[in-house]
Parts: sequence; structure tokens; C-alpha cells
Amino acid sequence: MPRKPTQPTVLRERAAGVRTTARSLTSIAATAGVSVSTVSKVLNGRTDVAPATRERIGLLLRQHGYQPGARLDFGVVDLLLGLGKGQPAMTQHDPWTEQLIHGTVEAAAEAGHSVVVTPVDSAEEFDRWLELATVRGTHGALSVVHLPRGTELQRLAAAGIPVVVIDPATEPGPDVRSVGTTNWQGGLTAARHLIELGHRRIAVIGGLPSLWSSQARVDGYRSAMLESGLAVDERLVSHEEFSVHGGRRQATRLLSLAERPTAIVAANDAQAFGVLQALRDLRLRAPEDLSVVGFDDVPVAAWAAPPLTTIRQPLAAMAATAFRMLRAGESGTAQAHHVELATSLVVRGSTAPPRA
Amino acid sequence: MPRKPTQPTVLRERAAGVRTTARSLTSIAATAGVSVSTVSKVLNGRTDVAPATRERIGLLLRQHGYQPGARLDFGVVDLLLGLGKGQPAMTQHDPWTEQLIHGTVEAAAEAGHSVVVTPVDSAEEFDRWLELATVRGTHGALSVVHLPRGTELQRLAAAGIPVVVIDPATEPGPDVRSVGTTNWQGGLTAARHLIELGHRRIAVIGGLPSLWSSQARVDGYRSAMLESGLAVDERLVSHEEFSVHGGRRQATRLLSLAERPTAIVAANDAQAFGVLQALRDLRLRAPEDLSVVGFDDVPVAAWAAPPLTTIRQPLAAMAATAFRMLRAGESGTAQAHHVELATSLVVRGSTAPPRA
Repeated sequence: MPRKPTQPTVLRERAAGVRTTARSLTSIAATAGVSVSTVSKVLNGRTDVAPATRERIGLLLRQHGYQPGARLDFGVVDLLLGLGKGQPAMTQHDPWTEQLIHGTVEAAAEAGHSVVVTPVDSAEEFDRWLELATVRGTHGALSVVHLPRGTELQRLAAAGIPVVVIDPATEPGPDVRSVGTTNWQGGLTAARHLIELGHRRIAVIGGLPSLWSSQARVDGYRSAMLESGLAVDERLVSHEEFSVHGGRRQATRLLSLAERPTAIVAANDAQAFGVLQALRDLRLRAPEDLSVVGFDDVPVAAWAAPPLTTIRQPLAAMAATAFRMLRAGESGTAQAHHVELATSLVVRGSTAPPRA
Repeated sequence: MPRKPTQPTVLRERAAGVRTTARSLTSIAATAGVSVSTVSKVLNGRTDVAPATRERIGLLLRQHGYQPGARLDFGVVDLLLGLGKGQPAMTQHDPWTEQLIHGTVEAAAEAGHSVVVTPVDSAEEFDRWLELATVRGTHGALSVVHLPRGTELQRLAAAGIPVVVIDPATEPGPDVRSVGTTNWQGGLTAARHLIELGHRRIAVIGGLPSLWSSQARVDGYRSAMLESGLAVDERLVSHEEFSVHGGRRQATRLLSLAERPTAIVAANDAQAFGVLQALRDLRLRAPEDLSVVGFDDVPVAAWAAPPLTTIRQPLAAMAATAFRMLRAGESGTAQAHHVELATSLVVRGSTAPPRA
């Protein structure tokens, strides 16, 4: 289709053309009596299709304006934001997600690639993305949080699209590669920091219990308490959504206990901001009245008053690592299916020794 | 080039191919003795090239594996982040930018498009992006903050890539379309809100004076003071970078004056967070000791303690409007070259009447 942006009708045709294109690939498959993935294999010049079938599909593709096996490389990778599944309190607008987007954009830019960002919150959106990405070509997909399984993985493989998951919501198996962070170590480090400051009565707010990462962080906290001979008071252990509201709610509850904690390990920085709001409501101050440690070290952690002490997830490095794993492909050399990058403690103003 | 992601050597070739492709277009132009933009016109099937030239270039393009005038529509728009120019304190990681990225991704997704995000902070990066985008095709470019002029505009036009600027850093002329927000009205509304609460001694922190938007916001503040018969004390008017650090610095200065202000209009939400930090340093509280109004209403504005009263820029709507302007193209119907979407006041917890 000729491209004449100075003529609006052509622009409109092009816009409509996206949907037409997506439908065509499916209809070509139906006409040829094969699966869409077989069509995409031929489109991508793969040789694992019987010659007669390849010939028949190739003819149909050319009739519809495609150039089978002659695709140019447009230097893009896809970033799929699949936050809708199993993460009710997370949204695209979370600064945590933003950091991953930027980490990916920067790592890709260094390698001369652009990043195509697509929200994929339903099976239909995934199907639609897969069809478009198959047609235009992609170096691969980075999936944020959502861990593709079963049919999705088969279809990605059939389309020849490698995938790496960043911070999988559930325990990753060996069938898909993923990059995470050392959540257990992070929980351990946060609690140890407070213990070293002299705190004994330390509360922990975990993320939602269904999340793999939450379980690891709370276990790290328990381990730090145990190694210091401190008993865990189960009234000080809770699970909450990853939000300011959730942090405020739990802190308000904890600060109303007869025996208040002197410190809180929050599940993320948003919750820690909520803890600071609860303190303000009660005309209390951090760190004088309560110490709080966040988790993530999103850029806004330093905006809080006081600036947050937090456990840093190396989000940009996680994105860059996932990007490199994508490009390394199945390189023959031994490659782990899951890599965790180290968390680290960033001490700012929200923690101090407890009041004597 | 056949695509076989199961063979790493091919993946590496493909990655290298990006640069090869980009070079080829320039070298085809050199071989044909024409400009790159003429080559891109032929590649894009445009008819405003002399037939003989078109023929000659078309032949060269086909020899290099291109399909002139037969491009598929991959349904992408480009988002250019050009924050490095003239905005020293702004970075890609600013939550303000994030909102624009998400607004664009969402508006594009609704229209069945994906968004390619590329940081473009130098002339070289712009050149490289333009070459790749020309090869792969794009529905157009949204440029955040950076206002292309002169040669850049000519080259975009030659490549047939429409452009719309979001929040231009400098005053936009009629040669490029742009979307902004009502900065003057925002400054006016912020100051009026404080005046209505009973404040008389109101400070304003503007952004850097080189920014078009800063000038408008400070003028809005002056206008509100004037209409209420309040004199502007020039010691209460300053200009600062859009950062937490800048807000903290100015607030510390203002709070050390013999005659302190009772309220501050900040240039953005980051500065307002800095004002809250300065208050904490001095063991003062907002809004009891000082009211503060932010600007932008980034999602983290609600994370502050107290949550920020702020002037909302409709960032998602600005991105969506820019996207629609891009798709409308030169539609024949009268279209303004610059559109401003209304700001609005969001009252949260950081403003209250001054202490009696």
C-alpha cells in the first residue's frame, strides 16, 4: 500500500489496514487448512514446513501482499506489560513498572534496537499482539510479571518469538527463561538492618500471599529474626496489596496495638509511603517514633519526607539482563533458566535506633 | 533474511543487520546521487519523484532487499523522548514523562497500534531513529518536549512522517503541531485557591526561566495576586529546576526570611515534595505551618504525607490528543497548530487556611 501521509484518506486506510492485516493471516491459514503458526513459519522463511505446504502457503501470502522469507530486520523487541493477572494492586502506572520500561528502552537503545510497548492484560490482547508481532517481526518478547504457560508458550515457539519473563509473579519452571531479584535476601537484609540499629519489636508487611516474591521476602525477615534469637509475634506479620493505601491501613493497625512495633519492614516503597502517612495522621514522626524500610528503591523513594531507607531492586539491570538473555537465544552454552540479581540496602532517613 | 531464532548465529546476524540496513539506505542514496529523503520517498511509494529517478532508485532498493512501495502496515507510532535538550533537571525517569508514555500507549492500544519508544537526546540519535523509522514505516512521531525545527522538520516531511509535539519546551510556531496544557490558567488557579483560603503572603517557585511553560505559570500567579489587590513581594518569586532538591532549597530559603510566606505555589510536584522535606527538616508541618500547591498531579502526588494539593495536567489526555492529531493528518478541515488542554485544581491535604 503506498504511503501518502499528506492524503488523509490514505492514512485512514492504513489505520484500517492494521486490522485487515491481522485478519488476513488468520484467513490465509483457514484457506490453506493449516494453523496460523504454520503460516507464520512460512512468512518467516523457516524450513521446518513440508515443501508442498510451504509452496501453497507462500503463494497465498504473496497474493495478500506479504513477502515470505524476505523480511527486513526492523530492530525491535517487544515489551509486554501483563500486570492485570494476579496482581490486583499493580498497575501500569506503578513507578516500579516505569523503571522496567526505561531499563528495557535503554538496554535496547544501546544495542541499536527500539522497544515496542504493548499492554497485554487478557488472552485476546495476547492473541492480537502475537499476530501483529508475527507479521512485523520482532527480536523477541520481554514479559513483565506475566509468566506465559502452556498454549501461550507453544504459540510463541511456533511463531519463533523467544521470550524472557521479568519478575515472574509465580514460581518459574525450566520451560521459560526469567529474571528476578533476590527477594529472600532482601527481606533478610531489611530485618537485619533494623536489628543492628537495636530494634527488637519489628513488624513485616508482606505483599499478597499468592505472590512468589512476597513469600520469599517474609521468609527472609523470619530468618533474620531467628538468627538473632528474636521471637516473631504473628500479630506483627500481615499481607497487603502493594499500595500506599495498604501500607497506611496496616501501619494504622500496628500503631494501635498495646505493644507497638518500633520498626516496620514494608513490602514495597508505596506501602512505606503509606506508613509515613499513618504516622502523620497520628502526629508521629519517622524515624523518631517508628523506623520503616521500603522495598524496590523506585526513584520517588528519595522524595519522601524523610527519604526512604529501602531495599534496592536493580530494576534497570534486570531489564538489561532480560534483554541480553533474549538476544543470546539458545546459544549452546549452558544458560540458567532463571537468574536473580542481588538486592542491596540503601540507607536514607527513615530508619534510626529506637527511642531509648 | 530467514528468521531462525533457534540458531544463535542467525540471531547475531540479524542484530548486526540493523546497522547494515541503516547504512544501506544512505549508501543507496550516494550511489543514486540523490538525497536519503528521495530514497525514502521511493521506498514509501510516494509519487513526487521524477519517474526516471524513481525507476533507478527502485532498482537499487530491490537489489538491497527492499520492496519499494509495497510496505505492510505494522501499526506502530513512534514516541520520541527528547528531554536532554534545554531541560537539565528533567530525566526520562520523571513520573511526568511516564504518564505521557502511558497515555500514548493506551491511546494507541485503543486504536490497535503499538508504540515504539526511543530516547532521542542528540542529533545523531535523531538521525539514527529517522533512518530506522523510515525503513520500517510508522504512522508518525510524537515528540515529548523537544520541538523539532528547520532541518529536522524538513527531513521528517521528506520521509513522510507526520509529527506532533507534546508540551513543547519553547513557544511553538505554526510550522509544527503541538499539544500543551493551560499553564497560565494553572498558575492563576493555584494562587487563587490559596487566596481564597485566606493566604496573603504567597511565594511562587517557577521552573527554569528559559521554559515557556514556567513563564506562563508565574504570570498566572501574578495575575491572581493583582486581581485580589495583593502586592507581589519579589523576594517570594524564584526560579528553580524541576526537582525535589530545587524545591527543598527554595523552601529552606523562604522559611528563613524574617517575614515567612504562609503558602508556596511550586513549579511541579517534585518541588512540592522538596518543600515537604524542608518543612520536616525544620520540624514544621504542612498545612498547619505552610500550605503548598504542586503542579502536574503525577500519580505519586497522592503518596505524599500529607497528600499534595496540586494543579492537574491531563497528561494522558494530552498524549491521546496528540495521537489523534497525528492520525488526523492534514485532514482538510481546519486544524489548530497548537491545542492546550485545561488544567484543574485537585485539593488534597497540603493546603489549609493560614494559622490565625
